Amino acid sequence: MKKHNFSAGPSILPQEVFEKTASAVLDFNGMGLSILEISHRSAAFLSVIEQARALTLELAGLNHDYEVLLLHGGASTQFLSVAYNLLNKKAAYINTGTWSDKAIKEAQAFGEVVVVASSKADGYRYIPKTFSVPKDADYLHITTNNTIYGTQYQTIPDTQVPLVADMSSDIFSRTLDYSKFSLIYAGAQKNLGASGVAMVIVKKDILGKVHRHIPSILDYQNQIKNESMFNTPATFAVYVNLLTLQWIKEQGGLQGMETKNQAKKTLLYTEVDRNPLIKGYAQKEDRSWMNVVFNLTDENMTSLFDDLCKQANISGIKGHRSIGGYRASIYNAMPIESVKVLVEVMQEFERKA
Amino acid sequence: MKKHNFSAGPSILPQEVFEKTASAVLDFNGMGLSILEISHRSAAFLSVIEQARALTLELAGLNHDYEVLLLHGGASTQFLSVAYNLLNKKAAYINTGTWSDKAIKEAQAFGEVVVVASSKADGYRYIPKTFSVPKDADYLHITTNNTIYGTQYQTIPDTQVPLVADMSSDIFSRTLDYSKFSLIYAGAQKNLGASGVAMVIVKKDILGKVHRHIPSILDYQNQIKNESMFNTPATFAVYVNLLTLQWIKEQGGLQGMETKNQAKKTLLYTEVDRNPLIKGYAQKEDRSWMNVVFNLTDENMTSLFDDLCKQANISGIKGHRSIGGYRASIYNAMPIESVKVLVEVMQEFERKA
Repeated sequence: MKKHNFSAGPSILPQEVFEKTASAVLDFNGMGLSILEISHRSAAFLSVIEQARALTLELAGLNHDYEVLLLHGGASTQFLSVAYNLLNKKAAYINTGTWSDKAIKEAQAFGEVVVVASSKADGYRYIPKTFSVPKDADYLHITTNNTIYGTQYQTIPDTQVPLVADMSSDIFSRTLDYSKFSLIYAGAQKNLGASGVAMVIVKKDILGKVHRHIPSILDYQNQIKNESMFNTPATFAVYVNLLTLQWIKEQGGLQGMETKNQAKKTLLYTEVDRNPLIKGYAQKEDRSWMNVVFNLTDENMTSLFDDLCKQANISGIKGHRSIGGYRASIYNAMPIESVKVLVEVMQEFERKA
Repeated sequence: MKKHNFSAGPSILPQEVFEKTASAVLDFNGMGLSILEISHRSAAFLSVIEQARALTLELAGLNHDYEVLLLHGGASTQFLSVAYNLLNKKAAYINTGTWSDKAIKEAQAFGEVVVVASSKADGYRYIPKTFSVPKDADYLHITTNNTIYGTQYQTIPDTQVPLVADMSSDIFSRTLDYSKFSLIYAGAQKNLGASGVAMVIVKKDILGKVHRHIPSILDYQNQIKNESMFNTPATFAVYVNLLTLQWIKEQGGLQGMETKNQAKKTLLYTEVDRNPLIKGYAQKEDRSWMNVVFNLTDENMTSLFDDLCKQANISGIKGHRSIGGYRASIYNAMPIESVKVLVEVMQEFERKA
């Protein structure tokens, strides 16, 4: 029996993506070959990666001032690549959680890093709204959604310097003016597919401005020149990425995702706020649409809540080990029916407690 | 109908790996969850990655002086990581092909790189046997098998400095004294599974000797401390890696692979040498067991040979774009029956030409 999977990532993908993927592992497009065994230089795979890159631009509503890269290494490698490629002397970062903090740490080896705002002292419960970016900063880096603490930028800040965003956990979950960004990156394993590939959307005019040597594999200009094929890409993960993007498009694109995600998060936060035994973690105005983080008001009730979740076939709801509690991740592929099951569990918990 | 897939990588995997993988994409171990949607921190996945790491050490016959890492980025990222982690002042490289050449290029940004031997001037047709490694070199780097040119070290050189090897295209294809190496790395997509994960076996005592800052994601000591989970690993590719290692063990381990691979390469090279219309590329004594590279003696016959291959359901046999001709990759998972089909095609080609 299929579970209700609230895992924070790797996480639920659309059922039809699982089915098409399983079929392609046995025989891809009737070729008599598995998707796992075809050359990355074959016409069949080139079509996959080209479609994935084109569909990414299309969904984001971006023109060819931008390039899409599908790279190895996850978002954590992008912490490094961003600094290698863009940080000449000084960069600004906003610290809204563990992943921002890690991005800052990697950048510090490359130049001056100015942390222009941080909610660290308050357990990352909110998104800082006021800050001042040095005019000579090479870029401002933000993390649009913070999985661990369940916070998210509801509006993207205006800035005079190029804006760089880690969107790993909310990419393509809502409509946005993507042209506000000069560089966006995201590990695929939440809204874009399977782990093993990271998507980068980069505005070409911000590249080529640093003077240091950039290792080939981390060099965006080299990756653009090689169309994400400087080395053998993670072919399977790229294929799952394409299927997931196609599913998003079929569901009405980013507007379709936004409508569904809004309904899901409203349903769940309404119950979190109503239920006297449950308390949300993040400041209300900054709450994430993707990761609903909450605690029980009485920790002695933990085993009852866990039992009810288990009986309802709910999995992956445990909070991140750094803050405990619970985290219900309700990414694009999560059906509202599963969110309803969780709300019913919360209500049953209230009755039985 | 299933093809005979001679692709150089991504390449053929055992049929049972495809079948188990397809099944796990729909439901992993009866959990009611896809292998693509389970957390990398779940007990189920931790068991996968721990088994893969342990089985790698077991197959290599190595003890716990060594650590096994399963990392993002392919072998090309290791060109960089090796230099970052090991190159203090000077390193020695042997240049036996395009991949050696790329490894050399990446290392040059980190210190003095002494190319102690090279077969570049002769189209990389052979493996240099005589060379002198500076005593103060931090390591000697070799590429044990060269996919493009079809050459391979038949014996591993003795050296006084730590030996580092890119084994991407012949890892676990034969018995070897793996303890001769201080570091081995390999992209998975030939003998170890699907693209998207690279295996590193590193002797711990060679680490911690450079003084530069090493970015976290590239730092072997950091990856060891985090048990290859500094960031979300390529979970699916790690799973395919485990299945492939289990298959190798079931087939008799490295001795079993060696026996089968020896039979395959003997069959194919015997025909290459016998057939007056076919000419091997590499020097005989250095011929690869994995990639049989050859040309037709009369290039006007190309379309006849291609047609015969197509009729026999042979795919992926075209040579690398840099040297042309043909390349039959006969990795671990290639059955001897497919090699026989290719030999028959070569014989039919001789009759029809």
